[in-house]
Amino acid sequence: MMNLTAVDFTRVTLRDCFWAPRLETNRKVTLPIQYEHLQKTGRIAGIDPEYKPGDRTAHHIFWDSDVAKWMETAAYSLATHPDPQLEAQLEEVIAKFAKLQRSDGYINSWFTAVEPEKRWTNLRDCHELYCAGHLMEAAVAHFKATGKRHFLDMVCRYADYIDSVFGTEEGKLRGYPGHEEIELALVKLWKATGERRYLNLAKYFVDERGRQPHYYDVEARRRGEDPEKRGPGRYRQNQSHMPVREQTEAVGHAVRAMYLYCAMADVARETGDRSLVAACETLWEDVCLGHLYITGGIGQSGSNEGFTFRYDLPEETAYCETCAAIGLVLWNHRMLQLHGDARFADVMERGLFNGTISGVSLSGDRFFYVNPLASLGNHHRQEWFRCACCPGNISRLLASVGQFFYSESEESAWVHMYAEGEGRLRVGDREVTIRQQTKYPWDAHVRLELNLARPATFTLALRIPGWCRQASVTLNGTLVSMAGMMEKGYLKLNRQWQSGDTIELCLPMPVERVRANPAVRQANGKVAIQRGPVVYCLEEADNPVTPLSRIALPRSSALNARYDRDLLGGVVVITGEAEVIKADPSRKWLYDTRAPQTEPMRITAVPYAVWDNREPGQMLVWLREI
Amino acid sequence: MMNLTAVDFTRVTLRDCFWAPRLETNRKVTLPIQYEHLQKTGRIAGIDPEYKPGDRTAHHIFWDSDVAKWMETAAYSLATHPDPQLEAQLEEVIAKFAKLQRSDGYINSWFTAVEPEKRWTNLRDCHELYCAGHLMEAAVAHFKATGKRHFLDMVCRYADYIDSVFGTEEGKLRGYPGHEEIELALVKLWKATGERRYLNLAKYFVDERGRQPHYYDVEARRRGEDPEKRGPGRYRQNQSHMPVREQTEAVGHAVRAMYLYCAMADVARETGDRSLVAACETLWEDVCLGHLYITGGIGQSGSNEGFTFRYDLPEETAYCETCAAIGLVLWNHRMLQLHGDARFADVMERGLFNGTISGVSLSGDRFFYVNPLASLGNHHRQEWFRCACCPGNISRLLASVGQFFYSESEESAWVHMYAEGEGRLRVGDREVTIRQQTKYPWDAHVRLELNLARPATFTLALRIPGWCRQASVTLNGTLVSMAGMMEKGYLKLNRQWQSGDTIELCLPMPVERVRANPAVRQANGKVAIQRGPVVYCLEEADNPVTPLSRIALPRSSALNARYDRDLLGGVVVITGEAEVIKADPSRKWLYDTRAPQTEPMRITAVPYAVWDNREPGQMLVWLREI
Repeated sequence: MMNLTAVDFTRVTLRDCFWAPRLETNRKVTLPIQYEHLQKTGRIAGIDPEYKPGDRTAHHIFWDSDVAKWMETAAYSLATHPDPQLEAQLEEVIAKFAKLQRSDGYINSWFTAVEPEKRWTNLRDCHELYCAGHLMEAAVAHFKATGKRHFLDMVCRYADYIDSVFGTEEGKLRGYPGHEEIELALVKLWKATGERRYLNLAKYFVDERGRQPHYYDVEARRRGEDPEKRGPGRYRQNQSHMPVREQTEAVGHAVRAMYLYCAMADVARETGDRSLVAACETLWEDVCLGHLYITGGIGQSGSNEGFTFRYDLPEETAYCETCAAIGLVLWNHRMLQLHGDARFADVMERGLFNGTISGVSLSGDRFFYVNPLASLGNHHRQEWFRCACCPGNISRLLASVGQFFYSESEESAWVHMYAEGEGRLRVGDREVTIRQQTKYPWDAHVRLELNLARPATFTLALRIPGWCRQASVTLNGTLVSMAGMMEKGYLKLNRQWQSGDTIELCLPMPVERVRANPAVRQANGKVAIQRGPVVYCLEEADNPVTPLSRIALPRSSALNARYDRDLLGGVVVITGEAEVIKADPSRKWLYDTRAPQTEPMRITAVPYAVWDNREPGQMLVWLREI
Repeated sequence: MMNLTAVDFTRVTLRDCFWAPRLETNRKVTLPIQYEHLQKTGRIAGIDPEYKPGDRTAHHIFWDSDVAKWMETAAYSLATHPDPQLEAQLEEVIAKFAKLQRSDGYINSWFTAVEPEKRWTNLRDCHELYCAGHLMEAAVAHFKATGKRHFLDMVCRYADYIDSVFGTEEGKLRGYPGHEEIELALVKLWKATGERRYLNLAKYFVDERGRQPHYYDVEARRRGEDPEKRGPGRYRQNQSHMPVREQTEAVGHAVRAMYLYCAMADVARETGDRSLVAACETLWEDVCLGHLYITGGIGQSGSNEGFTFRYDLPEETAYCETCAAIGLVLWNHRMLQLHGDARFADVMERGLFNGTISGVSLSGDRFFYVNPLASLGNHHRQEWFRCACCPGNISRLLASVGQFFYSESEESAWVHMYAEGEGRLRVGDREVTIRQQTKYPWDAHVRLELNLARPATFTLALRIPGWCRQASVTLNGTLVSMAGMMEKGYLKLNRQWQSGDTIELCLPMPVERVRANPAVRQANGKVAIQRGPVVYCLEEADNPVTPLSRIALPRSSALNARYDRDLLGGVVVITGEAEVIKADPSRKWLYDTRAPQTEPMRITAVPYAVWDNREPGQMLVWLREI
């Protein structure tokens, strides 16, 4: 294990064409309108311990987590953009949770006001520990942003109480969350507070999962239910079908799986547990080699909000919950810190540029919960959801997206992603600022300039993206011979660096046709268009053909890239000549033996992430190739 | 309206290679094992009026209909193959129903033994009238087979009682069945008994459907339910969303729709109601031009066991319930009698040779409920179903399949389908026997020889199948010039016929590549293989490739037909050269930019109807064409 440390987003400035506008929209539009939705829907009012059923129409059992994600995002925003009004709003919500907290430390609006007698009686379904986790993440963010301890102390009292309830010791419940989340939150809490019991509790939750006798059966019987009625597959949905170290296949609910795998990587890192790392690697191969959409989406099926089977990648019915893509990014970010291997950064980047940010409109006020790879024209972003996990999740991801760009270690500075702006790193005891000039992801060129107080020897590790096959690099104007200097996808430049040293990367990004493994039946004979890290799609707005699958791309067609500053906030669009099966209004029968007539058609593809930002219509990622 | 009369199956003998073996298996295997299943599962015991809940594990609300379909099939079998043991078994079941019948005429095991207080309280969901209809069909079949009236009289008392309960008259319930069926059964009952009230009652059920105030809302309120909670789309599932004459789109549960449309055609025929014929024609266009699978299957979705939207024809998830394909055949058979138009016979034949008989194994003891057009290898026929409508339905269809071959009218003899054997027709007052010699559907040649007591002038109408584009016909050895003699797909030969007159049809059946309307997105760029009326598929048993969709058919490939007497009971198999995307075990990543490598592969296709009769494996109807 290499144990890189991600550079906090507070030490990363993005002034680029891609992320910076989104971050601004996130701060100025998404954050305030999400608070409005929390208010309008009763989620804020519901924190009141005096609340009684009937005060609002439906008190959702995990509404606390929606509020917590907003709090976490608000804290991230305050960390980079102080805003007294937002801070006051946040403190007000914190005060409500303080009032909600029971004398034993417990914080949960549903099980305080609505069903107090059912506390901890159904960990499998009731999301109590999940909500607790999100509160902890919010509190850590708040503490780091403001330096104030009151929220942190509040959740520590809750964590202490949880620690007194759960564990292997005599008299404790041997339970663990039905929806994972608290594990990774507890690791954050331990790192913020230094209280090792929180790490131990996280480790307990990870280790206990899936052991026999199965806790969910035990608690079900305690509730008077017969767990056998749910059948032998009942544990897979929440990844409790076996102890985590024995798990080799991604199963069940995709978001839960990602949060669990994050926690496994976190606990592995903090405890040095190689068996957990090995399990993560096996699961990573299963996810990324068998279940990953080209957009970075995961979770093929809506019926379980999760995984189906290897190489099953339906397009129209792809679930690809925004939260799951975010979870995948968070997990790969952790794996990257463990290994310093660009394959994790490649997946992280795939998710960041495509299947995560598709979850929010360019206007910042509409959201996808589900991110399919094809649409008949009836799938559109919504203002909010009854189950509103995704809007808050994409918002907190964007507010902290800087964290994914750089890592630091004793002897190395790592650059994982490219964007105009700068990162302020500490390599050992040396302050190193890396300034990037680039139009990435639209342009191949990245200029990096180092700034140091005094010359220093360390390794600068520059990721050469997996999609890039002909990278070239100059150092202070001299071409670098990359042979022998590449390690796990990173160009490792070890030398004595001084201020003003300049590296120029050329990462040529031709328009590429991507094919899936032939084992993916849905993609046989099809291609997706990708340029750099950006995956493209056809939208009906540019390609008025119904159905879009009438369009096929000849192998010989050239595909051209052109930056259009006026389109969709400024994107590179791809155009090319395709063939479209002619519609035949004279055709009467559903079936006949005539060969289909085609005609040439100029197609235009736009980045998948920005689809459904214009007039509603069909969308298609995978095109037939002829 | 032309009002042909279908020639009863008792006057049609099949001695052919395709149907005769299936009919024998149906009689010798399917009929006895179905009785066994009815016994084993408690369906027979459940007819007992003394039955009380708890006597068996689950009394299904429409089990009576499963028993009735077996009774109907048994009666058909007795009509052509007398069997004292079977007759005794049938009489025993009839006696049980006689004991079940209440003094007012009511016959229903569930609402007699289990919930007597709920009789007629939920027509929408409870299938009482549906079960009644199947009993009537069985009784008519029994009467026609045996000449005995006791079963017929029993259901007449039931019909009389139903007639006293339902109708527009003061004091009657203005209800109609949630699952259509009794309407067409009442028409059969009127034709068997001459009692016009039964036809009037059928017409009432057809006419009342979908009127306002909506009966299902009225009865729901009577049960204390709020019908609005089910939303505005609540009527579509059972086609009660508007009066039937206003319906233009096939919606909801496919079997229900087919039985309704059958009844509409029946009532139209018996009453001369052209508005019902017009509605049937509009619905037929919607079904056949927008919803029909190439196999003759209908009902795209399992979620409603029914229709989705026009041109939506998913393959793996196609529901295509066996009963729905049977219903489509029954409806088209009725439309054919009304119009003498071969387009109805074409759909009927498509269903008969493909999507209906796929519902039963060649061994006669395993059944498909669902008939998808592609399978990953996990879809197999079962011995029986908890909801067991399909096995009994395919069995009664096969036992009476002779009914689909010929029609008669005052001045014409009609041949709709071809098979070795003979039909004994009455054209006006003339007995005309038509003997066929042919290996149809495997061979293009059909020889028909007429047998008459004395020369007679009438029209012989021979269907030239819609799939056949180069038919030729000789009459007593002389080529017939078909120009000007074709009418709605039938060759009309009007002359004075005499015994020994011989017609030879040549219906060339090259292997054809069939394409769907480009509006069918799932079939863009794909072809299906068809020869004559038989639709083909690839099975893994012959084509060991995973997934099968790696196979693509070059446009230039020749496809060859060869009869294999030892395969699957004797079928024509199709072979040809295809290209298969190479599997690449060295491939690690899910996505890359390499062009897929293909290699030639000889493929073998077998008739869709007989798939899943060998080792379990994948199946695919629509092939990519390159």
